[in-house]
Amino acid sequence: MSDTRSLRVALLGAGTVGGHVARLLLEHHDELAARAGISLDLVGIAVRDVNAKRAVDLPAELFTTDAETLIQGADIVVELIGGIEPAKSYILAAIGSGADVVTGNKALLAEHGAEIFAAAARVGAEVYYEAAVAAAIPIIRPLRDSLAGDHVERILAIVNGSTNYILDRMDRFGDSMEDAQRVALELGYLEADPTLDVEGYDAAQKAAILAGLAFHTTVPAAGVHREGISSITLEDVESAREAGYVIKLLAIAERVADDAGVEGVSARVHPALVRRDHPLASVHGGNNAVFVEAEAAGPLMFYGAGAGGVQTASAVLGDVVSIARRHLAGGVGVGESVAADLPVHPIGAAETRYRISLEVDDRPGVLAELAGILASRGVSVETLQQSTSAADASASAVASDDVAASGEADRATATLVIGTHSARDAALAAAVEALAASDAVESVRSVLRIEGA
Amino acid sequence: MSDTRSLRVALLGAGTVGGHVARLLLEHHDELAARAGISLDLVGIAVRDVNAKRAVDLPAELFTTDAETLIQGADIVVELIGGIEPAKSYILAAIGSGADVVTGNKALLAEHGAEIFAAAARVGAEVYYEAAVAAAIPIIRPLRDSLAGDHVERILAIVNGSTNYILDRMDRFGDSMEDAQRVALELGYLEADPTLDVEGYDAAQKAAILAGLAFHTTVPAAGVHREGISSITLEDVESAREAGYVIKLLAIAERVADDAGVEGVSARVHPALVRRDHPLASVHGGNNAVFVEAEAAGPLMFYGAGAGGVQTASAVLGDVVSIARRHLAGGVGVGESVAADLPVHPIGAAETRYRISLEVDDRPGVLAELAGILASRGVSVETLQQSTSAADASASAVASDDVAASGEADRATATLVIGTHSARDAALAAAVEALAASDAVESVRSVLRIEGA
Repeated sequence: MSDTRSLRVALLGAGTVGGHVARLLLEHHDELAARAGISLDLVGIAVRDVNAKRAVDLPAELFTTDAETLIQGADIVVELIGGIEPAKSYILAAIGSGADVVTGNKALLAEHGAEIFAAAARVGAEVYYEAAVAAAIPIIRPLRDSLAGDHVERILAIVNGSTNYILDRMDRFGDSMEDAQRVALELGYLEADPTLDVEGYDAAQKAAILAGLAFHTTVPAAGVHREGISSITLEDVESAREAGYVIKLLAIAERVADDAGVEGVSARVHPALVRRDHPLASVHGGNNAVFVEAEAAGPLMFYGAGAGGVQTASAVLGDVVSIARRHLAGGVGVGESVAADLPVHPIGAAETRYRISLEVDDRPGVLAELAGILASRGVSVETLQQSTSAADASASAVASDDVAASGEADRATATLVIGTHSARDAALAAAVEALAASDAVESVRSVLRIEGA
Repeated sequence: MSDTRSLRVALLGAGTVGGHVARLLLEHHDELAARAGISLDLVGIAVRDVNAKRAVDLPAELFTTDAETLIQGADIVVELIGGIEPAKSYILAAIGSGADVVTGNKALLAEHGAEIFAAAARVGAEVYYEAAVAAAIPIIRPLRDSLAGDHVERILAIVNGSTNYILDRMDRFGDSMEDAQRVALELGYLEADPTLDVEGYDAAQKAAILAGLAFHTTVPAAGVHREGISSITLEDVESAREAGYVIKLLAIAERVADDAGVEGVSARVHPALVRRDHPLASVHGGNNAVFVEAEAAGPLMFYGAGAGGVQTASAVLGDVVSIARRHLAGGVGVGESVAADLPVHPIGAAETRYRISLEVDDRPGVLAELAGILASRGVSVETLQQSTSAADASASAVASDDVAASGEADRATATLVIGTHSARDAALAAAVEALAASDAVESVRSVLRIEGA
């Protein structure tokens, strides 16, 4: 540790976020020192290639490829490389050498958070990670500290700006999924390889972090059920709108008891129907929002930009200043509470509601038959809507190709939309399977969960 | 200080919030102990009358009228009495005896925060006050810690649930101010003496606290410009709606430079026109929201219940658990940063926009005359709307009483609504005075600031 006149800050990574962190540390040096009560001196930036072109212009003498040596001489190590290795080794080395750590590395925390927090706890180091979820939106401290005396029941969060941008375009401008993805790519909302965002991997990592914090439990990323948005069509979006919903990719963490009554947590990421008057429905573009339902506090929402280099840098710098203040005040890191140590249940244990859209035979007795299938799985119906309108007839033309092939081309079909009451997800999924197997059902057009009602 | 096995928590006050804090400390004792890493034992509740009837049923043996002795034996003192004295003396006594303090006392912090924080800093005590602003909505930690490395530009906040409820009723149900206040009183949104809420005193105290935190400066409540909502009429609300606005009582804190170029802060509370598509416009009923604009983070919003015993208790308990964790980790309190120590400028220095509704003579040349008055004060006009419709003719009947008395009963009048570009509030206020003094102006019907555009 350094003397009390300054703290040596080492930065690992000089991408978009790292560049802004370095710039702001230099530009606002005196102001940050005044707030922290101690000078925060950027002593170096570890990168793979010191000659690489960078978005933010920084003094060349700060750059080094020798991360290990930089870490050894630092009081605060800011890791913004991303990915598992070498980020993990660097963070553990920093903790081992007595430094505190700031990171925005959601993948690493979701996969190896428990190991990193345990290493920090052994030596009393701080590991702060406000930037790991929802960029600049303060959500880690509110969950860890402000709600530390409350009982969080559920979190519904929009934590991936790229997919929110895509779904919002489909909803507001009528773009197809393909067109919306193309625009998102052009405007930089989506990476060249969109898989992490579109298939929900990024949101699942954040869901694991939020669930762990909210429920004082270690939740591995592998315990998060994950579905992306690639199967969502414009027809789904428009049908949702007609019914008063908007489709959002939600990260959901909640308390659930399984069939045996064992209290646990469930974390999942999937597209969901959200009622238009829910606060999450008005989160547009690339923004993020975290909606928290707590026993005493009631519903809370945290809203803001969910990405962006300078926005994320704000969260990183807040952590750096907080660590500096704590350094001056003495004491060790408080660490993460995993006191509840709850089991992580699979999605089947969660209580959900489904909206099921089916192409069914248009003949007497079909409704009773399908209702019977649902009832036998313990699923009760809240709404039923059947239509054979011109629009539906044309929409069902695709399905009728298959029908024609099976020699039943002249069977009349109707569209049936079933909204269920809430039930275990396992029961709902089984009911959909049974419906799909029924002779009366030509095709399952879409199945979406309804959340936040 | 106690040993490390338990912390003795003393509660001062057993009103609605205090009752819930005590109940939750007792009911969730083991869970809170697990999270904090140490047992949190409620050792007593100081009240004026141990036999008073209380909303929450609590063990009689906890009650005492001897606050001084209770404080001396405590590790954490939770002050929920409210008001200046004896709350202030008790908090200083707690700090003096080595205890940490949790308080929800906005009046005390707005008036004497600097003295209390200084006393705490001398001995290294923590003073936490998440409950003082916006009840359960985490806003103190986000401003103090999460945004510690950023540059907050402006805060626009709905921090008084009572007045938001009243204005929301007028907007959504067409209630008159009188009717809305009556309903708010009946439903418990308003105290029997509504002055603190309706006249903006409560919001001004919170504005002082938010401004101090956001700008690292001591902002006394007396430095907050304050206007309440009692002058707002249903006509104002309806006219605002037609123009695409909703009227909200806002607490505003922002950076401003005065005419001499001296950087400072301005804090003010007044009714304001907010565009319907601004996130604050959709804050309904008794809810609160704090909208923060920061240089790096961009716009953020924190939303939730702004009052309520159990909601506020959530914030208090979060502070208690955080203090307990800090106690175990060692070190002293971080304290409040007032490093920037900026001057507090009067509202005249703030840049605002006005929407001015006038009853004017309906004759050629009036517009040019009034535009000239505005221009001579450096105020430029953004929108002008003149109407002589039947509705306006009837609305102007009241004004014409005065006109009749001055012998000009047959002068034709029109309603003129002027939206200004932004200018110093002092210039705008002077312009309104000059307009009112003009012969062409029969009466000034309303003047409201436009915010958040």
